[in-house]
Amino acid sequence: MELTGLSFIGSERGTRNGSSFQAFSPTTGEPIQPVFRSATLDELDRAANLAAEAFNAYSQISGKARAAYLRRIAAGFESHRDELANRAHLETALPLPRLTGEVTRTANQFRLFATVVEDGSWVQARIDPALPDRQPLPRPDLRAMLRPLGPVAVFGASNFPLAFSVGGGDTASALAAGCPVIVKAHPAHPGTSEIAGRIISEAVSAESLPAGTFSMLFDAGTEIGTALVTHPAIRAVAFTGSLRAGRALMDAASSRPEPIPCFTEMSSGNPLFILPGALRKGPAALAQGLFGSFTLGSGQFCTKPGVIFLAESPQALKFREELQLLVQQSQPFTLLTGGIAREYDRASIARAARVSAVESPSPADHEDSTAPFHARARLFTTTLDDLVSHPELADEIFGPDTLVVRCGEPKDYLAAARSLSGHLTATIFGDEDDLAANQELIQVLEQKAGRLIFNAFPTGVEVTHAMVHGGPYPATSDPRFTSVGSLAIYRFARPVCFQNFPDAALRPELRESNPLGIRRLRDGRPE
Amino acid sequence: MELTGLSFIGSERGTRNGSSFQAFSPTTGEPIQPVFRSATLDELDRAANLAAEAFNAYSQISGKARAAYLRRIAAGFESHRDELANRAHLETALPLPRLTGEVTRTANQFRLFATVVEDGSWVQARIDPALPDRQPLPRPDLRAMLRPLGPVAVFGASNFPLAFSVGGGDTASALAAGCPVIVKAHPAHPGTSEIAGRIISEAVSAESLPAGTFSMLFDAGTEIGTALVTHPAIRAVAFTGSLRAGRALMDAASSRPEPIPCFTEMSSGNPLFILPGALRKGPAALAQGLFGSFTLGSGQFCTKPGVIFLAESPQALKFREELQLLVQQSQPFTLLTGGIAREYDRASIARAARVSAVESPSPADHEDSTAPFHARARLFTTTLDDLVSHPELADEIFGPDTLVVRCGEPKDYLAAARSLSGHLTATIFGDEDDLAANQELIQVLEQKAGRLIFNAFPTGVEVTHAMVHGGPYPATSDPRFTSVGSLAIYRFARPVCFQNFPDAALRPELRESNPLGIRRLRDGRPE
Repeated sequence: MELTGLSFIGSERGTRNGSSFQAFSPTTGEPIQPVFRSATLDELDRAANLAAEAFNAYSQISGKARAAYLRRIAAGFESHRDELANRAHLETALPLPRLTGEVTRTANQFRLFATVVEDGSWVQARIDPALPDRQPLPRPDLRAMLRPLGPVAVFGASNFPLAFSVGGGDTASALAAGCPVIVKAHPAHPGTSEIAGRIISEAVSAESLPAGTFSMLFDAGTEIGTALVTHPAIRAVAFTGSLRAGRALMDAASSRPEPIPCFTEMSSGNPLFILPGALRKGPAALAQGLFGSFTLGSGQFCTKPGVIFLAESPQALKFREELQLLVQQSQPFTLLTGGIAREYDRASIARAARVSAVESPSPADHEDSTAPFHARARLFTTTLDDLVSHPELADEIFGPDTLVVRCGEPKDYLAAARSLSGHLTATIFGDEDDLAANQELIQVLEQKAGRLIFNAFPTGVEVTHAMVHGGPYPATSDPRFTSVGSLAIYRFARPVCFQNFPDAALRPELRESNPLGIRRLRDGRPE
Repeated sequence: MELTGLSFIGSERGTRNGSSFQAFSPTTGEPIQPVFRSATLDELDRAANLAAEAFNAYSQISGKARAAYLRRIAAGFESHRDELANRAHLETALPLPRLTGEVTRTANQFRLFATVVEDGSWVQARIDPALPDRQPLPRPDLRAMLRPLGPVAVFGASNFPLAFSVGGGDTASALAAGCPVIVKAHPAHPGTSEIAGRIISEAVSAESLPAGTFSMLFDAGTEIGTALVTHPAIRAVAFTGSLRAGRALMDAASSRPEPIPCFTEMSSGNPLFILPGALRKGPAALAQGLFGSFTLGSGQFCTKPGVIFLAESPQALKFREELQLLVQQSQPFTLLTGGIAREYDRASIARAARVSAVESPSPADHEDSTAPFHARARLFTTTLDDLVSHPELADEIFGPDTLVVRCGEPKDYLAAARSLSGHLTATIFGDEDDLAANQELIQVLEQKAGRLIFNAFPTGVEVTHAMVHGGPYPATSDPRFTSVGSLAIYRFARPVCFQNFPDAALRPELRESNPLGIRRLRDGRPE
């Protein structure tokens, strides 16, 4: 697929009027061809108006028709697997096998949502039939189901150039719900974005859907993103990225004349608590597992375990020593962008000034310390008292670091947990006796995170029906939703009730004969 | 029940340190005994901290235990039926039979949520069992369910002193979800609020629940409300009232260091479209029905039909003449507060300057035109062109008025519908042929309102499983939720996923044996 560097405005391509930018190789720092063009505000306006127009038709097509579109996109991703993975590897330096796997995950996400909308039960149809003889007044016939919100603005993330980007879970779930999508592509992987955008755009034509069902805008700055969130035609926002950028979008969405739902997934320290039983099983293996988890993807996972609570004991000391050794012996990591690398250094220096110890490998002779995208692993150590006095120590740093918080004994974990802000995950390592003895810890952590994990590292995120990739602020803008898994579709739908409508005027989901055979509630009970 | 005029701070009562205020009789304008005391910021802080503490225990009790609490409150409302209705009648001048009925509705709302949490299936349990043999990696065991958000701030509304106030649907649904509640009582009916607060507070002790499960704060101004929404312990907000106040709370909630979910139900014109078939059935009866609906409760219903689209025809003329006659012959109405009456006059005068005609009864000789709580019905008439150029003409006016928009022919309704902002309801009167001929109108209205009604007036709001009392801004802050009906519980809950937890450490809803017998999804399908 030849890269043109131009945005997708419905079925057309953008102009060369906007400012130009390029991707950079994280391994060499050199620019990569071709040159990309930022969308103009006129192009954005056209894409948004096309989306509003497309919504009228796209929101009316059947779940089966939407599923066909999603399955065609999935097939498109798979048929461009190598091209996508190779370009993403150039632009992100993430390992090729990981990227090849990410193409599969991306395709599977579209298929998951295809099965959800084919099945159709996700609309949560509820029927309270008329009670004409009720006293003192008859009850009317009431039938409710979920309907799509309208055009959704999706922001591609830097760290998953496929699964959380142009064709990521946000796009898949919004399209599944019946919402047209306008993606603001992440400028760190514009070539990967263009290939993905073309796959999704070609599927629009192939399925004869309205042109405005999908658009994708390039921009190296923030102008297009801000204008997108504040455009009157946009009805919801989905974003994965930094706390600073996410909060700016939240503020823009909530200060519109008409505020709109805005789901931002932003920042998580993913606290991990080590209970005594876990260390009895072998401190070295646990340290190796943790090292693998916090350096996975060069530490650029939303679910990286960034705060480790460890009660003092001889085995805890062994665990720390093993972790120190792993960090000291580690090779340099390559980060996604120069900006991320600079921020990793800045945040690390700021944290180092506050903690009791910092471990890091010495720069090797062959290492070019001026290479802007490179970073060394870091292990910070502090005490619980320091963390409670300086809760900002637990703030996420994006990169291959973690912070061990030394606690006096496991019962200190409760105070530690209570001091936490919101996170995507919270993890407990231990045995079943530990769990039984720490029910209150679990209850507190449940208030702090969207996913609680026992004896596994949080960096694995399954895309299933029960996954929750969400949590209280600052993990996300709204803890009532998730951005991963089939529940993610509920971000983009709203209930609509039809009162006293004749059967023929109802959508099939609500007709008395239930022609789609979906699960429904009648007077609150399954039919 | 003796009224003390003091707030409820958990199991204790507030002090007399705050400023004093009184209710006023809307019929006489005279103050009513006793004197009430606004809560102080210290009392608010204590209530909020008690709520945060109570949340730890209250969030853990079973659905059955929560249902027992809700049922006890329901019984309390019923056993104080006359006292509540009489005091509410004094404070609001709403008709006594309506208020007696509202006590029943309030009790039934608590019972509806009791059945929901007794049944337990509302938590939407989802189980994706482990797949230890999956390639290339095993899948962990994932189990998700809804859990409560935390302490909720509820704002009592003026227009339903029982069903949307201290013990209204917001309180009932938040308590049902497992969230402690702090109500900011509406100062227009403080005595009714105190009786309701005492019923809910006594049920807390009777069920041996934590004291902070319920508090209620008085304040005649906005200081306590704003401080409540910005208090760190508060995790969500529910409000019914004016657009100005609701937007101020939305802005306060979204500009917190940690923004929180904020559901405000604010403003709705409830557009009503009259199709030819409806007029063929008899224009006079339709006019009488409409007059009854827009003057019900002195026009102070959230669902008052405030914008009527009427295509010109001889029958349409008869309809307008009948409506004019009904308005001209109507008796004065009594509004809830002097502030509402003054705002009704101000908004009516502003609108009168913009429209082609205003009908209103002449003041009768016996009418005291200076009585501050009295208002006359008003019928405004304008054209579609004027409405499209001045969309603010369709803004809600709280009181016994409506606006007829003269259209050339029924096909103009589509442009009219497209120009609408968000509303709680949209109504179509006509016959089945009209509906079939206006599918596109229905599709547009579906984007604009939470409830679409055929051949009935929107002022009746059933409290059932399929009711949606919500809609796009400015009807509410978030169209994905409703404040009436059992779906309202979902405003106050968030999904939490438990990964790889041993069965014994899971909540009963998620255990393999399903001891509560609730409906669950396993791999996305019913078990």
